[in-house]
Amino acid sequence: MKIVVIQGPNINMLGTRERNIYGVMSMEDIHAQMKAVAEQNSVEIEFFQSNLEGEIVDRIQECLGDADGIIINPAAYSHSSIAIRDAIAAVNLPAIEVHISNIARREEFRQKSVISAVTAGQIIGFGPVGYHLAMVGMLQIFSQIEAFKK
Amino acid sequence: MKIVVIQGPNINMLGTRERNIYGVMSMEDIHAQMKAVAEQNSVEIEFFQSNLEGEIVDRIQECLGDADGIIINPAAYSHSSIAIRDAIAAVNLPAIEVHISNIARREEFRQKSVISAVTAGQIIGFGPVGYHLAMVGMLQIFSQIEAFKK
Amino acid sequence: MKIVVIQGPNINMLGTRERNIYGVMSMEDIHAQMKAVAEQNSVEIEFFQSNLEGEIVDRIQECLGDADGIIINPAAYSHSSIAIRDAIAAVNLPAIEVHISNIARREEFRQKSVISAVTAGQIIGFGPVGYHLAMVGMLQIFSQIEAFKK
Amino acid sequence: MKIVVIQGPNINMLGTRERNIYGVMSMEDIHAQMKAVAEQNSVEIEFFQSNLEGEIVDRIQECLGDADGIIINPAAYSHSSIAIRDAIAAVNLPAIEVHISNIARREEFRQKSVISAVTAGQIIGFGPVGYHLAMVGMLQIFSQIEAFKK
Amino acid sequence: MKIVVIQGPNINMLGTRERNIYGVMSMEDIHAQMKAVAEQNSVEIEFFQSNLEGEIVDRIQECLGDADGIIINPAAYSHSSIAIRDAIAAVNLPAIEVHISNIARREEFRQKSVISAVTAGQIIGFGPVGYHLAMVGMLQIFSQIEAFKK
Amino acid sequence: MKIVVIQGPNINMLGTRERNIYGVMSMEDIHAQMKAVAEQNSVEIEFFQSNLEGEIVDRIQECLGDADGIIINPAAYSHSSIAIRDAIAAVNLPAIEVHISNIARREEFRQKSVISAVTAGQIIGFGPVGYHLAMVGMLQIFSQIEAFKK
Amino acid sequence: MKIVVIQGPNINMLGTRERNIYGVMSMEDIHAQMKAVAEQNSVEIEFFQSNLEGEIVDRIQECLGDADGIIINPAAYSHSSIAIRDAIAAVNLPAIEVHISNIARREEFRQKSVISAVTAGQIIGFGPVGYHLAMVGMLQIFSQIEAFKK
Amino acid sequence: MKIVVIQGPNINMLGTRERNIYGVMSMEDIHAQMKAVAEQNSVEIEFFQSNLEGEIVDRIQECLGDADGIIINPAAYSHSSIAIRDAIAAVNLPAIEVHISNIARREEFRQKSVISAVTAGQIIGFGPVGYHLAMVGMLQIFSQIEAFKK
Amino acid sequence: MKIVVIQGPNINMLGTRERNIYGVMSMEDIHAQMKAVAEQNSVEIEFFQSNLEGEIVDRIQECLGDADGIIINPAAYSHSSIAIRDAIAAVNLPAIEVHISNIARREEFRQKSVISAVTAGQIIGFGPVGYHLAMVGMLQIFSQIEAFKK
Amino acid sequence: MKIVVIQGPNINMLGTRERNIYGVMSMEDIHAQMKAVAEQNSVEIEFFQSNLEGEIVDRIQECLGDADGIIINPAAYSHSSIAIRDAIAAVNLPAIEVHISNIARREEFRQKSVISAVTAGQIIGFGPVGYHLAMVGMLQIFSQIEAFKK
Amino acid sequence: MKIVVIQGPNINMLGTRERNIYGVMSMEDIHAQMKAVAEQNSVEIEFFQSNLEGEIVDRIQECLGDADGIIINPAAYSHSSIAIRDAIAAVNLPAIEVHISNIARREEFRQKSVISAVTAGQIIGFGPVGYHLAMVGMLQIFSQIEAFKK
Amino acid sequence: MKIVVIQGPNINMLGTRERNIYGVMSMEDIHAQMKAVAEQNSVEIEFFQSNLEGEIVDRIQECLGDADGIIINPAAYSHSSIAIRDAIAAVNLPAIEVHISNIARREEFRQKSVISAVTAGQIIGFGPVGYHLAMVGMLQIFSQIEAFKK
Repeated sequence: MKIVVIQGPNINMLGTRERNIYGVMSMEDIHAQMKAVAEQNSVEIEFFQSNLEGEIVDRIQECLGDADGIIINPAAYSHSSIAIRDAIAAVNLPAIEVHISNIARREEFRQKSVISAVTAGQIIGFGPVGYHLAMVGMLQIFSQIEAFKK
Repeated sequence: MKIVVIQGPNINMLGTRERNIYGVMSMEDIHAQMKAVAEQNSVEIEFFQSNLEGEIVDRIQECLGDADGIIINPAAYSHSSIAIRDAIAAVNLPAIEVHISNIARREEFRQKSVISAVTAGQIIGFGPVGYHLAMVGMLQIFSQIEAFKK
Repeated sequence: MKIVVIQGPNINMLGTRERNIYGVMSMEDIHAQMKAVAEQNSVEIEFFQSNLEGEIVDRIQECLGDADGIIINPAAYSHSSIAIRDAIAAVNLPAIEVHISNIARREEFRQKSVISAVTAGQIIGFGPVGYHLAMVGMLQIFSQIEAFKK
Repeated sequence: MKIVVIQGPNINMLGTRERNIYGVMSMEDIHAQMKAVAEQNSVEIEFFQSNLEGEIVDRIQECLGDADGIIINPAAYSHSSIAIRDAIAAVNLPAIEVHISNIARREEFRQKSVISAVTAGQIIGFGPVGYHLAMVGMLQIFSQIEAFKK
Repeated sequence: MKIVVIQGPNINMLGTRERNIYGVMSMEDIHAQMKAVAEQNSVEIEFFQSNLEGEIVDRIQECLGDADGIIINPAAYSHSSIAIRDAIAAVNLPAIEVHISNIARREEFRQKSVISAVTAGQIIGFGPVGYHLAMVGMLQIFSQIEAFKK
Repeated sequence: MKIVVIQGPNINMLGTRERNIYGVMSMEDIHAQMKAVAEQNSVEIEFFQSNLEGEIVDRIQECLGDADGIIINPAAYSHSSIAIRDAIAAVNLPAIEVHISNIARREEFRQKSVISAVTAGQIIGFGPVGYHLAMVGMLQIFSQIEAFKK
Repeated sequence: MKIVVIQGPNINMLGTRERNIYGVMSMEDIHAQMKAVAEQNSVEIEFFQSNLEGEIVDRIQECLGDADGIIINPAAYSHSSIAIRDAIAAVNLPAIEVHISNIARREEFRQKSVISAVTAGQIIGFGPVGYHLAMVGMLQIFSQIEAFKK
Repeated sequence: MKIVVIQGPNINMLGTRERNIYGVMSMEDIHAQMKAVAEQNSVEIEFFQSNLEGEIVDRIQECLGDADGIIINPAAYSHSSIAIRDAIAAVNLPAIEVHISNIARREEFRQKSVISAVTAGQIIGFGPVGYHLAMVGMLQIFSQIEAFKK
Repeated sequence: MKIVVIQGPNINMLGTRERNIYGVMSMEDIHAQMKAVAEQNSVEIEFFQSNLEGEIVDRIQECLGDADGIIINPAAYSHSSIAIRDAIAAVNLPAIEVHISNIARREEFRQKSVISAVTAGQIIGFGPVGYHLAMVGMLQIFSQIEAFKK
Repeated sequence: MKIVVIQGPNINMLGTRERNIYGVMSMEDIHAQMKAVAEQNSVEIEFFQSNLEGEIVDRIQECLGDADGIIINPAAYSHSSIAIRDAIAAVNLPAIEVHISNIARREEFRQKSVISAVTAGQIIGFGPVGYHLAMVGMLQIFSQIEAFKK
Repeated sequence: MKIVVIQGPNINMLGTRERNIYGVMSMEDIHAQMKAVAEQNSVEIEFFQSNLEGEIVDRIQECLGDADGIIINPAAYSHSSIAIRDAIAAVNLPAIEVHISNIARREEFRQKSVISAVTAGQIIGFGPVGYHLAMVGMLQIFSQIEAFKK
Repeated sequence: MKIVVIQGPNINMLGTRERNIYGVMSMEDIHAQMKAVAEQNSVEIEFFQSNLEGEIVDRIQECLGDADGIIINPAAYSHSSIAIRDAIAAVNLPAIEVHISNIARREEFRQKSVISAVTAGQIIGFGPVGYHLAMVGMLQIFSQIEAFKK
């Protein structure tokens, strides 16, 4: 089984700036922790970050036939990108949406994600821990799929 | 450390009805699983379900000085209960909001929770697994609090 | 066959106050008339009134396996109670919604019921006669169900 | 006493098409049942169907001095016809509005009737039975009027 | 020069019903007064009333090459009829819109006319006098047109 | 009998600027024509223009016990001035609202007057002729009042 | 196979008026071109125009069992007619909606058609060419239906 | 004369939590001060607090025939409870609505009370002093009622 | 200590007109009562009324360094005047907003005050008594300030 | 003459996924059919697909001086991309917008295209046939342009 | 050439109050700097401040034939004053709108200016420097006008 | 000190197309003028244009530690790009937003920029001069920063 982790715009700045909102961990730190969990569970994992909406669409499309699940933080594109939504719907893989901050406490325009409806679930507001919960959730989904196959 | 799990209206019907939306697990099954995880982690846990908004407010108030964290599925009250919101804000404990179904796929009026802004985080759409993720998340929060105390 | 009649908040004040809107008949008068019709048709009938949203939810849940149809006037809770809506959907029994006054002529916030979508039908604006029409309607539904069983 | 039954646009197609929404009874079947009830109660009854909003207005105006009550299913014109509303207000007769399907479950634009505010009451979602309930309701209104005259 | 007066739905009921809103003058009385003014000013005048939106559209189209000005009370169709609006725009004659009652004091849905934007002007709230003012206004427009031709 | 004509902000610029919208007649020309009509009908008339909302309120208040009718073009204050509305309601005199341009063809924010609901009627879009129509209308109202007194 | 072409209100004025928006071709010219294409493809064709919403509903109902496809320009009724929408849904034939002008460039109220959702497709903004494209589109649909039957 | 003071959800937490918003006085302190004022003025007073919307409705109903005035802080139920509104309207006693904080400075959803329209008046933003002002206001109302009786 | 009482547009008409809404007391009567209370409490008081929004802004600015508290009834300017709001915020003195009528029962546009957010509190719906309550409230604020200084 | 065909995000997945909505034809199949029609009509044709909004803008800009018409399916970018709209307006070439599915039947957010207003026309809901109709439409536009040049 | 600088309500309080938003410079300091720049460029300059909307309208009207450009900070009147908008449109001089604070960061109601559409340009958020930029901008406009005249 | 100038989509077409809106100067002309001003003030300057939202995000991120200020015209992305907004917030450098045309006069969707709230200020509607004003504004900001450092 293989998970692709897709990070949206400005996530590469994590830990460097706006620490009052996003905390001090860098994106690389988060990925390292996820990689460790993946290895413990014998699951393959790949990471991708882009500031370009269309490159994220490309990367999701490439998951077709290559990956078994997607963990995505669409960041600023969460609130408007029908293209990312359509790509997730097209590849039809279980996807988990992560938001680091509690978007319900932020600006009105950040409180609605157009992508949630095509994901399996959302994990919101846990800081970097959210990625860990997403890993636990994805492993559960994998074990359900395998149980179902048997 | 002690967790109080609060279940909103109609959650007591889980597994009996509307299985296409909510699955076949009963509320008691979910609680049993949570209890097991709590015991493995030496954490105390209590469960409460009510169909009455005000009884839920009462129960949250009682957590003050008695519990260290709240896992709550406000169910139908998620979308309108300022009283529950105010109670969580008043006791000022870390709270995790769980929704079994992916509310982003359902009726317009189910897509907004007025409670999210006073919680630490939300876990949405994972079915009964969501409660397990909430347990994992709460344990992480507890370990951060204890690390901070030291 | 058994019908449960559920009366929402302030319906117990009928006939005592605001007679210009709600008329002079008391709730007990209405129930007496309904009881007579039920007896003529050899149908069991029970009555319940509460000012508490959650107690109404409780009572609806208890209908499961006990009653065959629900006649409900959700009164002030009609316009906001997702909990009552979910309870009716959960027990999956035929429900008829009654409003005594013509809500289309009243304040904007009274003109929309969030419960209608889970009921079999609505009878609105007929005063106390509306409960009689609901009885006639429910008996028709019962005869259709029995015809279908045969 | 005399009742005029007015059927709006496309009601003449009943039973022929879209049976999943509107059932298998034809408009003529419904009228036959209503006629039977009218005869049992010694009440005169007339039927009218038109796809033209203005012809429905004409027919309502003709009720002035000729009929004692109107049963109307404004169908597609329910949601926009101020002209039909004004005609009912102008003739000032008791009118009962019937909708075959449960409009609260259908498209947003079907959920609001601009006509309800000038009717005595509405009966919604009972299928063809709704016309029967409207007959029962109208007979009750007639007996109240006659009681009042004495 | 020739004026066509077009009366919308239910205007034929004037003076008979709802006198508290529309007064006691009948449509025929109003037309008689208008005819007198027309004759004094050597202007031809024709009257038309219909409850059918499309017949009003037909009558407006017939004005092309036959009339020099239109006085119209679109009544209930004022608030929704793009067809009447388009017909007035198509014949491109000066049109004056009259409303008997002060629509700014009535229901929200009566306060906006979709037709006003294609008329030369509106006269609102003067009761039957409004038709007289429209006559005066149209005669002024005629004298301006004739002055312009010279 | 006495009429007070109240002109709102920027009406004093009429004829000087934006002639494509407001025409070439000056405010003084309009007033001269109104004065002539007033004299022909033995009615007293006074004119007032101000760019200050509050001065217009003052002038309306002064009409109490001094004037019998008000012709007002509230201009830019039409769309927001509750103070002018309240003043007209307070003096309780017949008021006619005039708009020179057809506000239904202009910007969205010009299409709604908050003042109309407290006036006897509105005359909109006739250019300077509108003031003449308002004079005719006011004289009609005066003759009705005098007829009523007898 | 047989196509019925239904033209909504004011389309009969085409080529005569408002040529800047609708061009110089008359409705008859357009019909002549469509007839030629129909004959080339051995398809029967009939034309109908009415300014009355209800007559258009009547004509659509008559297509049932008589025609195989409908090309309709609902014109001003596009934006509000649930009755036409319901008629198209009731006869359940492939329908193509044509708009001569590019409604996306016009007034807000012209930009939404309530009818589109029950049509096979829409062709918008091509002027009279749009009817030709609709013919080509309908012929393609016919050939698919015939291919499917085989 | 007798006053009933009704405190809504979470008011029992006053002084314990969120002191930056609600201050340091407890609900008991406030009640003690009110009791003192009542005694000085020989007025009977009773206090009631509940977190249950329906219990508040029950308590209001019990005021009928028992109390002469109600001072109510509906707290979180202010913004949605039609049931409490209907109960106050039903008992038809003078009611004064108190809000401790200045709701105009808080979240959008706290700025509108659905209850105000059925109260005699509202006192907002004065902190605990607001209850004192409500006492003064109620005593004034009582003296007016008594003056009126004489 | 000194209080400035600022009365908005049309308040000078109190007692003369619209007594059904505003009662029979004149503004001068109210001021006399306030003056008496001020003298009893050895507080200086000044009164100001204007129909001009900008003069009210001027008067508020003059309070800076001269007054210790403002009691203001912004009347019709409550609903739109950002200028008055900014002036109150600029002088940064405790301000109490009074509305004579219960604005929650009146037109939609009167139900929201843009000024409330910069005041200490609001007193709404008590008629002339509201000014008395405002005096009591301001005296309480003064005693708190003096207590704080000590 | 030369046509450039521009395909928006996820169109490259056609035929592979979500066949219930988009059908079984691949993008390459569609392009092959278009190429054949182009060759029959001696028109040059080029194809371009990208998931990146900005690359689509680049490609449209390159059409300036190189192409004579654009056929574009903006897909998910239809609903938000002002950049694509501005690019089409900037190059000022006839553009035809194609949507494969009937967007009027889908989610609310898909029903409005911000691009339509700068295109010559739209073809919506015909499946892959839509591209063929766009070819026919573009050829008609070309022949009109050439006729105009002569 | 002559510039008139018009300052809206409460700008005269600059530097005295709310320094956290508006800074420590007084209006007089700003005017002194503008005067210096004007003298360096041999341009005449006049300053005007008023808290009265109508006086600002008066002052703008006086610019006609007297000034060549207007620099205006409409302050609180920016968001509602159609009267100021109309005055600027009437005098038809180049006007530059200045806002000291970044209104995009402030309350919703401050984010839209109804005046911008009739100005040449807006300079927002630069603090007192904004007036300097407006001077530079106006001088550029003057030099363009003079270049154009030659 | 170093300024980076970032130009959004379609700005590279300036001077070539839509000259009625954007004028005849090319982007290169504007940049040349800015470069001259920069050299006169011994400030380093770099230019960047892209039609890709994500490349603009990339370029803003690169400013961190490399530039001291950003002048940005986000063009079509102004109205929707949360990603650009977040990038500017992340690098936390003074940014000035420029719009060439007066967006307040254009389509509704162009009148709101989601980026303004994270910029130091906006300069709107001055044509190419706006970039010059932005340079003057940025130099002022630089001199304030340097003054502050000393």
